[in-house]
Amino acid sequence: MAIAIKDISVKDIRFPTSRNLDGSDAMNAISDYSATYVTLITDREDLKGYGLTFTIGRGNDLCVSAVKSLAELFVIGRTLEEITANFGQFWHELVSGDCQLRWVGPEKGVIHLATAAIINALWDLWARSENKTVWKLLVDMKPEEVVKCIDFTYITDVLTPEEALTLLRRVESGKAQREQEMFEYGFPGYTTAAGWLGYSEEKMRQLARQAVADGWTHLKQKVGADLEQDMRRAAILREELGWDRKLMMDANQIWGVDQAIAAMRKLAQFDPLWIEEPTSPDDILGHAAIKARIGDIGIATGEHAHNRVMFKQFFQAGAMDFCQLDPARLGGLNEVLAVVLMAAKFGVPVCPHGGGVGLCQYSLNIVLFDYIAVSASLENRVLEYVDHLHENFEEPLVIKRGRYYPLQQPGYGVKMKAQTLLDYSWPDGREWLN
Amino acid sequence: MAIAIKDISVKDIRFPTSRNLDGSDAMNAISDYSATYVTLITDREDLKGYGLTFTIGRGNDLCVSAVKSLAELFVIGRTLEEITANFGQFWHELVSGDCQLRWVGPEKGVIHLATAAIINALWDLWARSENKTVWKLLVDMKPEEVVKCIDFTYITDVLTPEEALTLLRRVESGKAQREQEMFEYGFPGYTTAAGWLGYSEEKMRQLARQAVADGWTHLKQKVGADLEQDMRRAAILREELGWDRKLMMDANQIWGVDQAIAAMRKLAQFDPLWIEEPTSPDDILGHAAIKARIGDIGIATGEHAHNRVMFKQFFQAGAMDFCQLDPARLGGLNEVLAVVLMAAKFGVPVCPHGGGVGLCQYSLNIVLFDYIAVSASLENRVLEYVDHLHENFEEPLVIKRGRYYPLQQPGYGVKMKAQTLLDYSWPDGREWLN
Repeated sequence: MAIAIKDISVKDIRFPTSRNLDGSDAMNAISDYSATYVTLITDREDLKGYGLTFTIGRGNDLCVSAVKSLAELFVIGRTLEEITANFGQFWHELVSGDCQLRWVGPEKGVIHLATAAIINALWDLWARSENKTVWKLLVDMKPEEVVKCIDFTYITDVLTPEEALTLLRRVESGKAQREQEMFEYGFPGYTTAAGWLGYSEEKMRQLARQAVADGWTHLKQKVGADLEQDMRRAAILREELGWDRKLMMDANQIWGVDQAIAAMRKLAQFDPLWIEEPTSPDDILGHAAIKARIGDIGIATGEHAHNRVMFKQFFQAGAMDFCQLDPARLGGLNEVLAVVLMAAKFGVPVCPHGGGVGLCQYSLNIVLFDYIAVSASLENRVLEYVDHLHENFEEPLVIKRGRYYPLQQPGYGVKMKAQTLLDYSWPDGREWLN
Repeated sequence: MAIAIKDISVKDIRFPTSRNLDGSDAMNAISDYSATYVTLITDREDLKGYGLTFTIGRGNDLCVSAVKSLAELFVIGRTLEEITANFGQFWHELVSGDCQLRWVGPEKGVIHLATAAIINALWDLWARSENKTVWKLLVDMKPEEVVKCIDFTYITDVLTPEEALTLLRRVESGKAQREQEMFEYGFPGYTTAAGWLGYSEEKMRQLARQAVADGWTHLKQKVGADLEQDMRRAAILREELGWDRKLMMDANQIWGVDQAIAAMRKLAQFDPLWIEEPTSPDDILGHAAIKARIGDIGIATGEHAHNRVMFKQFFQAGAMDFCQLDPARLGGLNEVLAVVLMAAKFGVPVCPHGGGVGLCQYSLNIVLFDYIAVSASLENRVLEYVDHLHENFEEPLVIKRGRYYPLQQPGYGVKMKAQTLLDYSWPDGREWLN
């Protein structure tokens, strides 16, 4: 029996994270971590799909409106089966089928963030209907089935469906073993918990010490507001981490190309594994220029790269050493699959963005699929962990000694608790009325 | 006495152009040309500022909401003088000052389209307060004053304020003469009036014949829906135009890189001056690859290039032979100035986007400034002319024998008639209630 999508509910959920300066960095000083939260309502009482897109406060209302416009045109009244039967084609229709809504993107900004919430809710619904997690649904697919979920528009010059098939088949035989390995040993993570710019140096040191005690081997520091301060903080972090653990740095787009080069030459003494978002997220050639001039520090970027065409070029230009795709900035999982496969072709490790509400959950599904079914490698792969707000989701994340363990409840992992939806609804939830 | 901005009015204006397939192309089959129309209300009864951003229907409501959010934070309660005293800095504040709204861009899509409406209304207000057109306001500025309007964030690796000054000073002495020349001979235009995909071949032939009779020397054809049809239509257009007049082609992003190359090798026989938007507007390296493989057909793009960082890279990669910046897709005139100056540095002619409501008016101001004060050249410069909807604006466009004559009424030229605002207001205007 086909599952019909009868309606959609979209909520504007905002958490007052700015009160504690959680999430503060050089670009984003006062963020209220937020979600455009989508529930797909079906004709089955016991089956719904849950998805979200991540924003940091104001502007979330725009994404809510955009979701409603897209859903009305393309989702409500369809069946899950007709959508998933040719999911790549459906995705194409959603992003290009209405030229009027496409115009205010195209495939970027508000309209693409909205696309992500819808698409990810559809994946959640699909996985729930199969009683699987999203990562397991993907891992169990035949290569042909994965490829059918991808819209290859604008990327066939670097990746054809046939090449994608070849990449997936290459590692097919080891899938069961790697899946088992993930349950036993988990996937390596890193933490940004100590590194926010708004925290005092003393608080940072204590959190870093705690992180080391908790078994984290990789820690990320926010930089870019003040170079002297960055160096002082890096020195503190190195004191706590030693030199065997990895230190990453994140500038959150604050620099121009020349500034980035100058700053990283000073910060190189602290041996960062990568510099993240050193300049404008749109500046592919700028990232390539920075990379060429800062020695062997890796370039990490992607959380603001808005679609597969941007990633294609970052790969072509050799301007991205760590692929930090964002599961909700890209137009949902279908587009993520395209980027994961291009990354595999170019040998770039995928380390998705986790710094936001629900992003760790999404990204965990993605890295499990990438490791088990695409890259078959853990080299240079680490998944960001940000430790706040997880209590709002029904399924807890399992982190032990700096490693993530597979999600196990059916779906994509971002279903929020009913109380959270009541308390943090904006502007009328209890937390905002107070 | 300082002019205080007391309030802002934002209207959702939509024209039912889809009824006649005006504006139809390979990507945009059913467009209702629309505007997010901004009026800045000041403390002077007789002084307001008018600006708009262009969309093609659904999604215009998103831009309306975004304008309100931005204006509340950054515009209402400010004086024109404090804004224009350091306009580049104000622009930076508008696009980056609120990290929450920045997140849903950044500098792209809905939020950047909204930025354009506000910024352009501020320029209109500034020009009206000086009793000048916007182009004349710009032309009369000292180079230092122009440079102060520009935010150089993310572009100093190709253009510093000092280089911008040098470019402007280079041609300063001839400004008066070129201004006079524009009044006498006008600025060269081209027409898309005959070339829309939704028109029959017979209608197209008649319109092309009329265009030639009216003195047009450049005509643009929409291509990309069907190659055989494109060739048939190009043959008809060449019959009407002959081979001395110029034929341009516009694919509106419909092709992948390889498809574009294959198509243009077939269409090359019709000697197009340029192929416009052959693929994704985000694909800088893709445009470069196409350019390298289609002989001496020029690459025209930019109407969907969302900010100065994209243009910077198109120039760096040599991937854009004609710079078709859009005055409302970029974040308004301040960002346009940055792109115009970068284009001058790279020797790329600026032929801005005119295909939309109010875009011809905006773009005429821009090309007049570019010719008189920056490039001092008409070589390969033509301004798009689309002949519908101009009757909705207070100041008529003056076109004679395929050339545009300078706007003369104070402002930016996009003030709509009061009746238009009533009739085409969406969803409750007379035209939409019918």
